[in-house]
Amino acid sequence: MMNVQLTVGSLLERAEKYFPKKEVISRTSSGISRFTYAQIGKRARRLSSALQRLGVQRGERVGTLAWNHHRHLEVYFAAPGMGAVLHTINIRLSPEHIVYIVNHAEDKVLIVDEDLLPLVEQIKSQLKTVEAFVVMTDKDDVPSSTLEPLYSYEHLLADGDPEFSFVKDIDENAPAGMCYTSATTGNPKGVVYSHRGIVLHSMALGLADAAAISESDVAMPVVPMFHANAWGLPFASTWFGTTQVLPGPQFTPKILAQFIELEKVTITAGVPTIWLALLKELEEGNYETGSLRAILCGGSAAPRGMIKTYESKYKIPFLHAYGLTETSPIVTLSRLKSYQQDLPEEDKLDIRSKQGLVMPGLEIKVIGDDGEVQWNGEEMGELLVRGPWIADEYYLDERTKDAFKDGWLHTGDVATIDEEGVVKLVDRTKDLIKSGGEWISSVDLENALMAHEAVFEAAVVAVPHPKWQERPVACVVLKEGYKATVSKKDLMEFLAPQFAKWWLPDDIVIMDEIPKTSVGKFLKRTLREQLKEHLA
Amino acid sequence: MMNVQLTVGSLLERAEKYFPKKEVISRTSSGISRFTYAQIGKRARRLSSALQRLGVQRGERVGTLAWNHHRHLEVYFAAPGMGAVLHTINIRLSPEHIVYIVNHAEDKVLIVDEDLLPLVEQIKSQLKTVEAFVVMTDKDDVPSSTLEPLYSYEHLLADGDPEFSFVKDIDENAPAGMCYTSATTGNPKGVVYSHRGIVLHSMALGLADAAAISESDVAMPVVPMFHANAWGLPFASTWFGTTQVLPGPQFTPKILAQFIELEKVTITAGVPTIWLALLKELEEGNYETGSLRAILCGGSAAPRGMIKTYESKYKIPFLHAYGLTETSPIVTLSRLKSYQQDLPEEDKLDIRSKQGLVMPGLEIKVIGDDGEVQWNGEEMGELLVRGPWIADEYYLDERTKDAFKDGWLHTGDVATIDEEGVVKLVDRTKDLIKSGGEWISSVDLENALMAHEAVFEAAVVAVPHPKWQERPVACVVLKEGYKATVSKKDLMEFLAPQFAKWWLPDDIVIMDEIPKTSVGKFLKRTLREQLKEHLA
Repeated sequence: MMNVQLTVGSLLERAEKYFPKKEVISRTSSGISRFTYAQIGKRARRLSSALQRLGVQRGERVGTLAWNHHRHLEVYFAAPGMGAVLHTINIRLSPEHIVYIVNHAEDKVLIVDEDLLPLVEQIKSQLKTVEAFVVMTDKDDVPSSTLEPLYSYEHLLADGDPEFSFVKDIDENAPAGMCYTSATTGNPKGVVYSHRGIVLHSMALGLADAAAISESDVAMPVVPMFHANAWGLPFASTWFGTTQVLPGPQFTPKILAQFIELEKVTITAGVPTIWLALLKELEEGNYETGSLRAILCGGSAAPRGMIKTYESKYKIPFLHAYGLTETSPIVTLSRLKSYQQDLPEEDKLDIRSKQGLVMPGLEIKVIGDDGEVQWNGEEMGELLVRGPWIADEYYLDERTKDAFKDGWLHTGDVATIDEEGVVKLVDRTKDLIKSGGEWISSVDLENALMAHEAVFEAAVVAVPHPKWQERPVACVVLKEGYKATVSKKDLMEFLAPQFAKWWLPDDIVIMDEIPKTSVGKFLKRTLREQLKEHLA
Repeated sequence: MMNVQLTVGSLLERAEKYFPKKEVISRTSSGISRFTYAQIGKRARRLSSALQRLGVQRGERVGTLAWNHHRHLEVYFAAPGMGAVLHTINIRLSPEHIVYIVNHAEDKVLIVDEDLLPLVEQIKSQLKTVEAFVVMTDKDDVPSSTLEPLYSYEHLLADGDPEFSFVKDIDENAPAGMCYTSATTGNPKGVVYSHRGIVLHSMALGLADAAAISESDVAMPVVPMFHANAWGLPFASTWFGTTQVLPGPQFTPKILAQFIELEKVTITAGVPTIWLALLKELEEGNYETGSLRAILCGGSAAPRGMIKTYESKYKIPFLHAYGLTETSPIVTLSRLKSYQQDLPEEDKLDIRSKQGLVMPGLEIKVIGDDGEVQWNGEEMGELLVRGPWIADEYYLDERTKDAFKDGWLHTGDVATIDEEGVVKLVDRTKDLIKSGGEWISSVDLENALMAHEAVFEAAVVAVPHPKWQERPVACVVLKEGYKATVSKKDLMEFLAPQFAKWWLPDDIVIMDEIPKTSVGKFLKRTLREQLKEHLA
């Protein structure tokens, strides 16, 4: 067979050639605009040539601090398209961590949204490798800033070459992208994505049995483009000529609902927090959501009750998925097998609430105390993953040895696997509660609580206990309208018949908000810290 | 990213693990049987170990002479699964050509269907490298034969190791399969498939915008498993846990129609000749075909009229595709773009009768006399293909230099490409008719003739002409019931308004049968030979 390398540039090239009229709908600070793939292609090529003129060499990193919009999409292709590495920086990290990762990745150029300039100005003196800043703005003039040299993105494009040839003579294993993931303690850890990994992951997203991304779709990634490549949707959607809707900075549930209605979005992707908030919006407003064929949900476990409401009330199918920054990210995806289609609705919901089957091309195993666990949906162990779009190290980081062993990524997630091979995440290894020597799953308790009509969010954490070492304590946010009427006692009575007595939380703490990470996951570490004396 | 190689064995491994209950329905000479993927997996592993015991080394060729059935499917995985190369031999080739390719490929073992033993017995004295013969039979005893040593497939399995580990420490570029393709003159030419090529092609078949092969499908490859891996369906279907229906030896249109009805086949694949014959069967019988979501049709251009009948009368969508043995094989596939869905039915049929858009992962170009042709659906040129599942040579064959140049496969097919990037095959370079310096497409004339209600098949060839160098002559097979009522003059009058006068054939020859190649394509070379004095 021909020695043709899988390259990121070729994905956009296909959209330019075969879907030049298809559109990317982009919301920026000044409004909503539409670009065809013919335009996006020429603009990305102009940017590639501009990066070259700024002195970016093959293999060097180009950092972005940006929301989901067309310019960010252009950098997705322009940087790897000229052989450089797209380094998407999580704008929600602390300034200290941003300094760390820009220096650690040795970013040569930083491309920054105008509204995020203050963030960069504040840390500029600590950045050791950045030689040029580029501001993405809708305005004609370069905004005044203390950054220098500071170029206007659009000015660079104006001087760029729209016929620039994306690199093809590059090893498919060469780096194309990079993203840092937060660590429980210490600095974020860098993950490098290869051209090969990105192309194979894109192909997997297009499989009929996976996300089935198609030219006929209108895809709206709500998951940030600075987080695990927005789950690979921008790459796959571009390749397949899919219409894209990029919801821009500081979007609200209302903006998302309006996009779904106006642009007839067919597939969208994000974390459960987003879908909880959207549900609220849908229940208050009157939106047409009939175009949606799938909500791809991952990042943390979606509450069963929420899945049920979307599916039964709004007829919007939920695709529960699982992955990590280290895994490009999709590892598993929950779909029914053909012979499960006739099961009772509740049984089907049980299956679809799990994290699902491993994607074609990857391998998983779940390792308990005595090696691989039984496939019985009960025995717990750590989930291990292997495959061509799974990282094999943290970039220049000695924590590599803790997570990558014997050719497998040790995810730190605790899972069961059932008779059908379906994975269910039980907890993070660090979040399991060990009470008197027995394990209690915080996630099972959370899901049960979230099924209560009054509960908006629930997080259960281990709290030190004088007798049992650890006991579960639940932190609950009530929905508006229930705050006066539902008590801690009501919730405890709701839980009691569903669990063994020793599984029940020792206390339920009603809160206004549960602290979350920059990507919307519960910050259980903070909760544990807050509650550490709670049962003393 | 991890250095995980794409291997053929891993495809079956996924079916064994995640779809062990799903079935392969197999017709052999003694009837129809059903095997689960759990069984197929163990049987393939037993066979891998048996091949090892027969002395087959990594990289050596294992030849098959077999129909589409479960045992052939097992060899598809057992040979590459132990590092050897699956060499599928076209049983319809002449004995001389079979001798040539077995010797040229240096097959070490030949695995042969019982009813094909006489074919091998006849040539055995000329085979230079074969050290063992294996017979695939449903009987307990080894059939009497002059071949030796001759092993029973089932006896080998009985002694094999059901836990044999498929190779993973193999370079994905290593050979996994091999198939010879007929040449216009001379011996067949060998094409080698790598593990990587097979896996990427399988992934492409699963894309929502390609064949969308899914676990929920019931796939029946009618295209022979000895021809371009049955278009890759056995590999992709196994990987995705799809139910497979393998129609076995000497199948008839009736057998196919019954399988479609009984097993609720959702997708089937084969050449136009098959679908013409099936259409006859459907029109005579009373079959339930509502399960079919797609007929994948390639090998030669499907007549527009046939596509229309299947779609309008039987509501069976037609997926027109194009490929070659050299291309694994799928290169293009015809689907409407989303914005073409509202076109008038006839316009849609026009688009879908073309060969379609290039698959994600491949590149094409059409080269005319002055470089790349305009995308206007009119300018003709030779179709060139490039990509990771396209061969880069003929195996140990100096004809490599004629077809593989500058990194592109020169297909020898003449095509146009329209404004939307859709490819239409116009002819083989060798079949174009050059009349007084102007090109005439034989395929356009054939399609027009086949749209006449009386015409079963039509082939148009160039015949030497004293004045115009070449002129078209049509060869036509009439349907039963029309033979007495429709004349050559009627057909000529039917064609006249559709073409410029100089395009019209000089003669129409009514025949009982059009000679075909072993894979069902018109043997135009033979027709040209028969008719060479026709216009003298």
